[in-house]
Amino acid sequence: MLGQMQDQPLLISSMLEHAERYHPDVDIVSHTVEGTVHRTNWRDLGARSRRLAAWLVRNGVGQGSMVGTLAWNTHRHLELYFAVMGLGAVLHTINPRLSPEHLSFIINDAEDSMLFYDANFAPLVAQLKDGLPTVQRFCALNADDYESILAATPEDPLFRWPKFDERSASSLCYTSGTTGNPKGVLYSHRSTVLHSMMVGMPDLMNASANSSLLLVVPLFHVNAWGLPYVAAMTGAKLVLPGPHLDGNSIYQMMKNERVTFAAGVPTVWQMLFQHIDAKGLDPRADLCLRTAVAGGSAAPRAMIERFDREFGAFLLHAWGMTEMSPLGVVCQLLPKHANLPAEQRYDIQMKQGRAVYGVQLRIVDEDGAILPHDGVARGRLMVSGPWIVDRYFKGAGGDILDADGFFDTGDVATIDADGYLTLVDRSKDVIKSGGEWISSIDLENTAVSHPGIALAAVIGVAHAKWQERPLMLCVKKPGASVTREDMLAFLSSRVAKWWLPDEVLFVDTLPMTATGKIYKLGLRQQYKDALLSA
Amino acid sequence: MLGQMQDQPLLISSMLEHAERYHPDVDIVSHTVEGTVHRTNWRDLGARSRRLAAWLVRNGVGQGSMVGTLAWNTHRHLELYFAVMGLGAVLHTINPRLSPEHLSFIINDAEDSMLFYDANFAPLVAQLKDGLPTVQRFCALNADDYESILAATPEDPLFRWPKFDERSASSLCYTSGTTGNPKGVLYSHRSTVLHSMMVGMPDLMNASANSSLLLVVPLFHVNAWGLPYVAAMTGAKLVLPGPHLDGNSIYQMMKNERVTFAAGVPTVWQMLFQHIDAKGLDPRADLCLRTAVAGGSAAPRAMIERFDREFGAFLLHAWGMTEMSPLGVVCQLLPKHANLPAEQRYDIQMKQGRAVYGVQLRIVDEDGAILPHDGVARGRLMVSGPWIVDRYFKGAGGDILDADGFFDTGDVATIDADGYLTLVDRSKDVIKSGGEWISSIDLENTAVSHPGIALAAVIGVAHAKWQERPLMLCVKKPGASVTREDMLAFLSSRVAKWWLPDEVLFVDTLPMTATGKIYKLGLRQQYKDALLSA
Repeated sequence: MLGQMQDQPLLISSMLEHAERYHPDVDIVSHTVEGTVHRTNWRDLGARSRRLAAWLVRNGVGQGSMVGTLAWNTHRHLELYFAVMGLGAVLHTINPRLSPEHLSFIINDAEDSMLFYDANFAPLVAQLKDGLPTVQRFCALNADDYESILAATPEDPLFRWPKFDERSASSLCYTSGTTGNPKGVLYSHRSTVLHSMMVGMPDLMNASANSSLLLVVPLFHVNAWGLPYVAAMTGAKLVLPGPHLDGNSIYQMMKNERVTFAAGVPTVWQMLFQHIDAKGLDPRADLCLRTAVAGGSAAPRAMIERFDREFGAFLLHAWGMTEMSPLGVVCQLLPKHANLPAEQRYDIQMKQGRAVYGVQLRIVDEDGAILPHDGVARGRLMVSGPWIVDRYFKGAGGDILDADGFFDTGDVATIDADGYLTLVDRSKDVIKSGGEWISSIDLENTAVSHPGIALAAVIGVAHAKWQERPLMLCVKKPGASVTREDMLAFLSSRVAKWWLPDEVLFVDTLPMTATGKIYKLGLRQQYKDALLSA
Repeated sequence: MLGQMQDQPLLISSMLEHAERYHPDVDIVSHTVEGTVHRTNWRDLGARSRRLAAWLVRNGVGQGSMVGTLAWNTHRHLELYFAVMGLGAVLHTINPRLSPEHLSFIINDAEDSMLFYDANFAPLVAQLKDGLPTVQRFCALNADDYESILAATPEDPLFRWPKFDERSASSLCYTSGTTGNPKGVLYSHRSTVLHSMMVGMPDLMNASANSSLLLVVPLFHVNAWGLPYVAAMTGAKLVLPGPHLDGNSIYQMMKNERVTFAAGVPTVWQMLFQHIDAKGLDPRADLCLRTAVAGGSAAPRAMIERFDREFGAFLLHAWGMTEMSPLGVVCQLLPKHANLPAEQRYDIQMKQGRAVYGVQLRIVDEDGAILPHDGVARGRLMVSGPWIVDRYFKGAGGDILDADGFFDTGDVATIDADGYLTLVDRSKDVIKSGGEWISSIDLENTAVSHPGIALAAVIGVAHAKWQERPLMLCVKKPGASVTREDMLAFLSSRVAKWWLPDEVLFVDTLPMTATGKIYKLGLRQQYKDALLSA
């Protein structure tokens, strides 16, 4: 028997309509590419989004059309979000830091019919242009181009956002593609609305009409973790930094816009700290930041501590993936942690966190058997839920779910009795030694805690007896003198004996990927026979 | 083009599974019918719900089966929630305060196949039993009956909650039916999950793992406003008062269980105040209540003020209907209200509130034209959204949506420029005088502010020239001496001149409905010719 409630699709346009009606005067502040500070609100942003949508329709954009953006966080990019998705077209947000080869690949793979770009990407677009046959229109997000379009498109009082199936595609993001070509993840209106509803919850991002949200996380990075939608839903103020991610700009925005909540990658917070140190600033006096979310990679303990002590702010670890919309877990403390000493609280904050309602997590062994939540068992992390990928765009990579419908994250993790997830390693980087798993990340972190080591990479290398054994590659700090024996002695008091690398080699540099990670695939190929021949 | 995210139904069982996995040790405290305090948690409640479900299946309950409850707020009633709905059967929660005639009607209309009842309703059940042909099994929620069933049903390790269409029916509530027979509202898993996700948000009920929720609102009253689900989703502690709604019991629970949030009708808060006065208690010292939600009817200004001054708690007005799952609007303050003097804050808190994301509201005139949000225009309040009724159970009342898919709430309201809704009157009670609307409620509230008036009712009565004019019926306080002329003089300085009743009559009593409201339908029939003959 079916219930008898109204059958209304969950559409992204409903969030904009809610914002226009209930939060019309709430600030949306952009630091533009041109270097100005631009202030608007949901009333105007809604009206401009409708005008943009009308222009898009007149220029052939409709349900299922693909529209690309190469753009920073500004109100114009936000207008594209709502205009394109509101029509039922698909917004393909592109990471401008990808290589030109990858950029061409994904724009062609997506078959974008239009490309909107911030003016400072004009040289990049000029370079790519001839290789993008599907793109019929290039539009710069500046006064000449984008604003002329809007100026020439008056508001149509009869314009209404169309209604359609909530499973319709809304946006497209590509994974970074460290191995092979990037793969697209095609979000739906349903997955986006459900994800946004959870992201706002008190134990997640805790967004309300009293929040001022600084989105350092780019609008091209997995829908800025859903935060633009959360702002529309809740009436939180939005602060968009454009391309200005340096410590001084971020600090000034936090101060001037009374930011309570900021989301970004740890690197950005590190730049903020450097600026504070250089200028001798007092964040606790200047700012009212309560929460800094760190995602994308793990925040170091010192960062957690510094936000606590110097800002009076909580560093909230969040973990997810492009394939997860992105949110999977967040690391809030539990009531039982309230009276812990700070050091022990930081221990907990170091973990990735606990699952958000809607996301199911499990860790499994190599045979797919489910492992216990005991904080010890390490297994491949599998995820499932209504905002998790079913298959990649155009079926790239084939079937990606297991028999239970779970997606393999490619990570190895533990889950403790309280449900806190801790990432151990990428599963392709973990070293499988005689049936046991050794974390390359743990070994690398230990190695770089040596005062003479600047950088370290640990890879699994084929071994006659143990299947794989760890090989460590180290880059010394300038002027440091460290030997193989020094390193082994240093490590042996810090890791389990069977984790000790079979070999430590010193190199001048390590190869890096476009996203700043060590290119381990290359290292594994280069050193594949290093232990067999020994 | 469809998105490519996992197609997973939103099912109520997923909230219980989340609670078992991530909040296993969180307290669920019940004050039982037997007078004891019972403590359990999600681990045990989940296990018992599965055992109960297994027993239900063995006894013929499956998808679409109807299971009735006549029960207070206890862990056992909560187990029935999750066991019955988790199976895809429908939980029909029955208001035991209805008349025996209405109880028989709705149990027969729902075709309940089982009826679970708290032991103190045994005499009522005995009285009704012979007139309930569809009910094949009656089960008392006590040690002999309910606990014996569970004791005889061991946990089946292979038991899994079934997966089915999220639009499947989950629970059934009947409207109070002041006119004609009660009508059923059949909620779905989808509507319930979406509603619960919004209810937890910071600007709504703000539920987190740090909350302790006291559910004075009954589990038979529109799913206790979704709060049991919110607790499962967020890990908030649940405090269930059983039948103990007196001031002393509520105060003790608030104190002993460190309640931060309590939801109920204003009558309950009035009883709490009386207890505090009688005992000379100090709520600010004893309690840690932060929010008291008042729903069901409007809270008086004095109540808002008293929660603020004496408890340091915010009285949060919430308004909705059985037909709305129930939540439509909540009355949070906006950031711009933060520095208002208390008296002006109370003015805002008196309103019903602003729409929750997901609920669309409009006010329309008698021709269906949409009226402005100016705080002045009064119109019929129409609502739409994914947790709002599409049609009544078994089609009772026929088509109930307008051409745009909006449901007529039967209320007359204003909406101001900030989006705050204020209810003016029930549309059937509003007096239509020469094309203008006069609020019967406003006139009644003014009348009872006269020191000699205990109770007042105002009805619209047919009038030759003006279509309708107000007639006022007053019950004097014992010993008071008030004349018709006194009342008219009193009113004339307080309401618009054209609102003044054409007649004021004094009566000894006013007829009341089962739910404690003045029976205006009866009064209108009785006095229908009162002004025509004048």
